[in-house]
Amino acid sequence: MDVFEHYDLDGAWARVRLHAHRTPVLTSASLNSLADAELFFKCENFQRSGSFKFRGASNSVFALNDADAARGVATHSSGNHGAALALAASLRGIPCTVVVPEGANAQKVAAIERYGATLVRCAPTLEARETTLARVLESASAVEVHPYDADLTIAGQSTCARELLEDEPLLDAIIAPIGGGGLWAGTALAAQAHNPAIRLFAAEPQGASDAFLGFQRGIRVTDYPVATIADGLRTYVGVRNFAIMGAYANAVLLASDVQIIAAMRLIWERLKILVEPSCAVPLAAILRYPEHFCGQRVGVILTGGNVDLDQLPW
Amino acid sequence: MDVFEHYDLDGAWARVRLHAHRTPVLTSASLNSLADAELFFKCENFQRSGSFKFRGASNSVFALNDADAARGVATHSSGNHGAALALAASLRGIPCTVVVPEGANAQKVAAIERYGATLVRCAPTLEARETTLARVLESASAVEVHPYDADLTIAGQSTCARELLEDEPLLDAIIAPIGGGGLWAGTALAAQAHNPAIRLFAAEPQGASDAFLGFQRGIRVTDYPVATIADGLRTYVGVRNFAIMGAYANAVLLASDVQIIAAMRLIWERLKILVEPSCAVPLAAILRYPEHFCGQRVGVILTGGNVDLDQLPW
Repeated sequence: MDVFEHYDLDGAWARVRLHAHRTPVLTSASLNSLADAELFFKCENFQRSGSFKFRGASNSVFALNDADAARGVATHSSGNHGAALALAASLRGIPCTVVVPEGANAQKVAAIERYGATLVRCAPTLEARETTLARVLESASAVEVHPYDADLTIAGQSTCARELLEDEPLLDAIIAPIGGGGLWAGTALAAQAHNPAIRLFAAEPQGASDAFLGFQRGIRVTDYPVATIADGLRTYVGVRNFAIMGAYANAVLLASDVQIIAAMRLIWERLKILVEPSCAVPLAAILRYPEHFCGQRVGVILTGGNVDLDQLPW
Repeated sequence: MDVFEHYDLDGAWARVRLHAHRTPVLTSASLNSLADAELFFKCENFQRSGSFKFRGASNSVFALNDADAARGVATHSSGNHGAALALAASLRGIPCTVVVPEGANAQKVAAIERYGATLVRCAPTLEARETTLARVLESASAVEVHPYDADLTIAGQSTCARELLEDEPLLDAIIAPIGGGGLWAGTALAAQAHNPAIRLFAAEPQGASDAFLGFQRGIRVTDYPVATIADGLRTYVGVRNFAIMGAYANAVLLASDVQIIAAMRLIWERLKILVEPSCAVPLAAILRYPEHFCGQRVGVILTGGNVDLDQLPW
């Protein structure tokens, strides 16, 4: 769609490839038979910093001109985006500040610090995150890198599905989780560029179903109470992200926390990989709504592997 | 060495490739920096049936002539070999019986049953395993496939290091865990065939250090009390395996259960993959004895990923 042609997917591809891992695509005979479909798992849990967020972060950091880069970057993040931005900034050798809400996953916060970013804590609300970040941006005159609602972030995330489609060009459908919608929007743009006939599904936790409601109503929902184990998906869909979802999603599919935990355990046991709860929402949705996937070749984006091993949900 | 030239490594390579996955080799910048070495992890946790044992089992099953194959196969196993043999037998369409000691890992036993083998329980001693298996072999006239002390098993396991050395031909050293010694012996034969200068290390749990003692004394030890979390390494080194270890090992390196658990957790957190405790013994040994590995390119065989997620050691 022309309205989205300002997203520079080729520029992002050129930049992100220099820094990100090309992650593997795994399959499992037993999961295929369980889902009655052919599933191709794009394993962003193996991505640098432990999640796909490094794609958007590195695209944003390396797209800066030298003068802007010297000011450093800042963001708010419940974890993965913060770690990704911290790593991307350290690779470019510029300062990075991350505003982290209280209660964020300890493993993710530790990674932000390991990559050398400055940490600023705030209350666990979107409002507190935004006002704290505004203060940081003002005092440090840093460049904001938004976790999902920014052109460069979305274009960076598109490289994940582009790799998947290079490896598996003949997919019938792709399903990715939706939180803020950066990954989802990037996935949709990459899939559209590859083949507009690919059906695109968003998977969302029932306990954070603002995207589902917004998709039904045709208007963004930003006042829905959020409670889900999928800590990467607790944010509301962004403005750019909602527009792209509205244009390209076939459906938003919900999964309960119980279904998410069961799917997470299946992925661990059958694929032998660590994924975080947010990652398991697409498989949970596939198993809940087989009518959309039965007999199809389905790409499934596994978004990250930063789990706190002391707090497993079973 | 000519004394080992009856091991048909090329025959095993031809057979096993048709059935086994070619598993990936993973690396981690943070583990490299921790070990002060370049580590190349050969990920047999992604192998069919969840461990390297499928290589030896499929080599043994597909090397049988039709008349022998029709009799079916049998073995005793604390888990992984049983599951591997059950899968290999099902692929060839022949019966399989597995003698399993009480107390074996529930996840592994469930896999044996899932692949359609007949299960026979016995007491958790080597003697009980052998007498029970002898009874099974007699009554069913099945062909025994030994978990480690058999030419075809060892030749099958050699295909793992052969793949690793195809991917990373310039390794300085390889370290693999030693239990019965099937994997270790196969690894050593493959490495010798590739480049006799590669240094070869065996990693063993301190609580099952028969290989360590035997290597010191120059004679197999079979009366050592065994107590370790590494359930795949509780067996004594076999006769063939001990001979190959004596010929090619640079050293047998021990790790305590505490070190094994810490290394297992490091692998989970940094590589984002599930490995079982036995898998973690080589990394534990590398971190304990850096003098052998510092500055080197080291192949590390990760043997399997069949963990009971309800019984994690932390």
